[in-house]
Amino acid sequence: MKIAIYPGSFDPVTKGHMDIITRAAALFDRLIVLVASNVMKRDCLFSAGERIELLRRCCGGMPNVTVDCDEGLIAEYARRVGATAIVKGLRAMSDFDYEFQQALTNRQLNSRVETIFLAASGESMYLSSSMVKQVCALGGDVSSFVPPEALPEILSRMRG
Amino acid sequence: MKIAIYPGSFDPVTKGHMDIITRAAALFDRLIVLVASNVMKRDCLFSAGERIELLRRCCGGMPNVTVDCDEGLIAEYARRVGATAIVKGLRAMSDFDYEFQQALTNRQLNSRVETIFLAASGESMYLSSSMVKQVCALGGDVSSFVPPEALPEILSRMRG
Amino acid sequence: MKIAIYPGSFDPVTKGHMDIITRAAALFDRLIVLVASNVMKRDCLFSAGERIELLRRCCGGMPNVTVDCDEGLIAEYARRVGATAIVKGLRAMSDFDYEFQQALTNRQLNSRVETIFLAASGESMYLSSSMVKQVCALGGDVSSFVPPEALPEILSRMRG
Amino acid sequence: MKIAIYPGSFDPVTKGHMDIITRAAALFDRLIVLVASNVMKRDCLFSAGERIELLRRCCGGMPNVTVDCDEGLIAEYARRVGATAIVKGLRAMSDFDYEFQQALTNRQLNSRVETIFLAASGESMYLSSSMVKQVCALGGDVSSFVPPEALPEILSRMRG
Amino acid sequence: MKIAIYPGSFDPVTKGHMDIITRAAALFDRLIVLVASNVMKRDCLFSAGERIELLRRCCGGMPNVTVDCDEGLIAEYARRVGATAIVKGLRAMSDFDYEFQQALTNRQLNSRVETIFLAASGESMYLSSSMVKQVCALGGDVSSFVPPEALPEILSRMRG
Amino acid sequence: MKIAIYPGSFDPVTKGHMDIITRAAALFDRLIVLVASNVMKRDCLFSAGERIELLRRCCGGMPNVTVDCDEGLIAEYARRVGATAIVKGLRAMSDFDYEFQQALTNRQLNSRVETIFLAASGESMYLSSSMVKQVCALGGDVSSFVPPEALPEILSRMRG
Repeated sequence: MKIAIYPGSFDPVTKGHMDIITRAAALFDRLIVLVASNVMKRDCLFSAGERIELLRRCCGGMPNVTVDCDEGLIAEYARRVGATAIVKGLRAMSDFDYEFQQALTNRQLNSRVETIFLAASGESMYLSSSMVKQVCALGGDVSSFVPPEALPEILSRMRG
Repeated sequence: MKIAIYPGSFDPVTKGHMDIITRAAALFDRLIVLVASNVMKRDCLFSAGERIELLRRCCGGMPNVTVDCDEGLIAEYARRVGATAIVKGLRAMSDFDYEFQQALTNRQLNSRVETIFLAASGESMYLSSSMVKQVCALGGDVSSFVPPEALPEILSRMRG
Repeated sequence: MKIAIYPGSFDPVTKGHMDIITRAAALFDRLIVLVASNVMKRDCLFSAGERIELLRRCCGGMPNVTVDCDEGLIAEYARRVGATAIVKGLRAMSDFDYEFQQALTNRQLNSRVETIFLAASGESMYLSSSMVKQVCALGGDVSSFVPPEALPEILSRMRG
Repeated sequence: MKIAIYPGSFDPVTKGHMDIITRAAALFDRLIVLVASNVMKRDCLFSAGERIELLRRCCGGMPNVTVDCDEGLIAEYARRVGATAIVKGLRAMSDFDYEFQQALTNRQLNSRVETIFLAASGESMYLSSSMVKQVCALGGDVSSFVPPEALPEILSRMRG
Repeated sequence: MKIAIYPGSFDPVTKGHMDIITRAAALFDRLIVLVASNVMKRDCLFSAGERIELLRRCCGGMPNVTVDCDEGLIAEYARRVGATAIVKGLRAMSDFDYEFQQALTNRQLNSRVETIFLAASGESMYLSSSMVKQVCALGGDVSSFVPPEALPEILSRMRG
Repeated sequence: MKIAIYPGSFDPVTKGHMDIITRAAALFDRLIVLVASNVMKRDCLFSAGERIELLRRCCGGMPNVTVDCDEGLIAEYARRVGATAIVKGLRAMSDFDYEFQQALTNRQLNSRVETIFLAASGESMYLSSSMVKQVCALGGDVSSFVPPEALPEILSRMRG
């Protein structure tokens, strides 16, 4: 059984994330969406627990997708669960540089895990969690950027 | 009448900004230089009011250029003033990625405004406000980087 | 009156070209779509005359758009017709590099013309004339890549 | 059963190709290395048949890897064999641009096939078939660039 | 006598840094590794003094390499010691953009100093001080990323 | 004595080349400008002999610069003359990719030669030999793109 991990901050989940999850779920027998709480991001909108909850709601209809959370090295988590692939979405050049370095590091740390990249769809090319937070904070309409299952929480958190 | 907006932090204004302003003013009937005070930049050198004042002094001789300030979404400001274009200068690859994503987001938020990009001139390719602040903080000579109208305030603020 | 030029090979015209034409036509009082026959491209699918004819058919409903053809320098053509802007669409990094160099050269040759860049829409990000020709040559369906007004000629030319 | 395709010209096969083949074979149940003879490359060193032969020799020890050849659209070939993934190696920025456009086109032509990208290993970052041919043509030593199984044919073809 | 400077934060020194130092030392009569303490980096792992100490230990065997520290402009330091070159390592595109702007700024500030770039070796392509700190903080093994002379201090500092 | 090589096609020499030559000559004890006639470029404007002649005229005033020609591998030429550096100018991203791969290949072929990159000056950022030929062929004024010593030959060759 081929297991893949899709790690990220998901603060909050966007339609771009859902696009990658849907496509990666079709490529592997099992996909673990991993809320990486180790990334020392300040100014988190949602706690790790809340992000897991939102992702689970959005991934409800996908039988081979589970959601988990980890504070350690992704390469180490992959070893623990027997995953052979780490999935990353690529939007732009600056993504590429950073992700490329992460991929090479992860292979150095765990030679049995491969990072595979999926190109963001044209319509999600501009989507990022920080863009969603920025637009929302300024009163813009983010309903076309995030999955409908997560919209109410995002709105109430940003504006409450 | 074609109206364009040139948004930015302008903290402080550089010769690179003035190059874009001069060129954009020739392309449109009216150009609004917009101090975007919403960008949550820490460590601002000048207040929004001071930046407006410096820009007005530098743009004094351009009859179709005005300076304004806004705290909200640029796409929303464009709608309000009836602007059809947002002007951005491009220096380098990393600019491109970020600006590209901003442009696609702004079109999503206001389908009637276009972002147009101008390539930075060769001589301004390396100029940025943060570079000016960094060089000035270390005692370097920034007189060839900023417009003469703004130099005294920048020097006294950085070194005072 | 602000006049802009949108130069290209248009061999053949794609939906990506039409997207740029529509958006640029809203930015300027008049837009000239210019078939640049000087670019020494071998293996042209359509003659310059045919490309003009196809473009005219596709731009029929846009009152401020005209189609022309020229064999010389674009900077020189711009001077002749009094254009203040050259419009280019940007899809990807390699576009950027080439177009950036062209823009700086054109300003050197004619200091009164500006090159402005529009970011390709998400859905046209992958579209190019050569991609259309390659897919069509291999028997693929190109109807979602080219404007319906041009599809019959492209199909009969590629497969005839 | 998850099937993936690794298409390319392989003229000639390099150690960079072998690195991607080895890694992709571990990710999928079956990997088809596909000599795409449609790409209108002039100046081919080896015929499609010879390239298949060399690849088969190099992939001899990998039980889930087969080698095939096709003249048509890759998206169409994927549909025919039931493949869910197209594998591409990424070395550099210019690769990225081209491959990204190919990936989006292939998804447009066959919505059930995903292109996945693997980052080239550090030591293969500089390897390409054309570099091998160029170095070999000038009398340089290419033995560290190509798999030992293919070296004799490459040397005799280039220098014969 | 040709003198070059290799400036950086070196917090901590990596095998990537050592690769550049070794190669640059072969290009010039004298190489000064310069701990630039002016870069306003927060969260420094080591003090400037400690970084100098670690670098000196790692460069012990190279007779034409010295280690120094400065808080001011690099262009100004170069003038003071009569250096004709500033050496920078390039790993990726985002490096390139930033370093390119720094290089043009430094030439503006001191027209007698050139910035020269060396491409990171394949095996150091993914190495950066921040990657080392991130991996180490999560309990990963960094012994293949940093010079053996510096490993004990890095481990005790990160985990102490 | 530190010897460097600056290889290229120089068909024809541009002000961008002269900028790199001047700067590289200040970095090394001796600089060899190398007309690489091996690069299988079709449509050469000048023969290798003519290009050498033009370069010699342009470099007349620089005592530590010589001009030579070679048909083989640059790494091999470097070994033969005892050069420790290959100098390349970088203008744009696509340059970077190609040059980076060349540099890594050359180190593989000759571990004692380093490729060093100099960033093109702002004003030469857009200059290339092919741009000069294209503009000249269309009747444009290239006098600001090429050294005055080479202008007459270029004009008479392109237009004759």
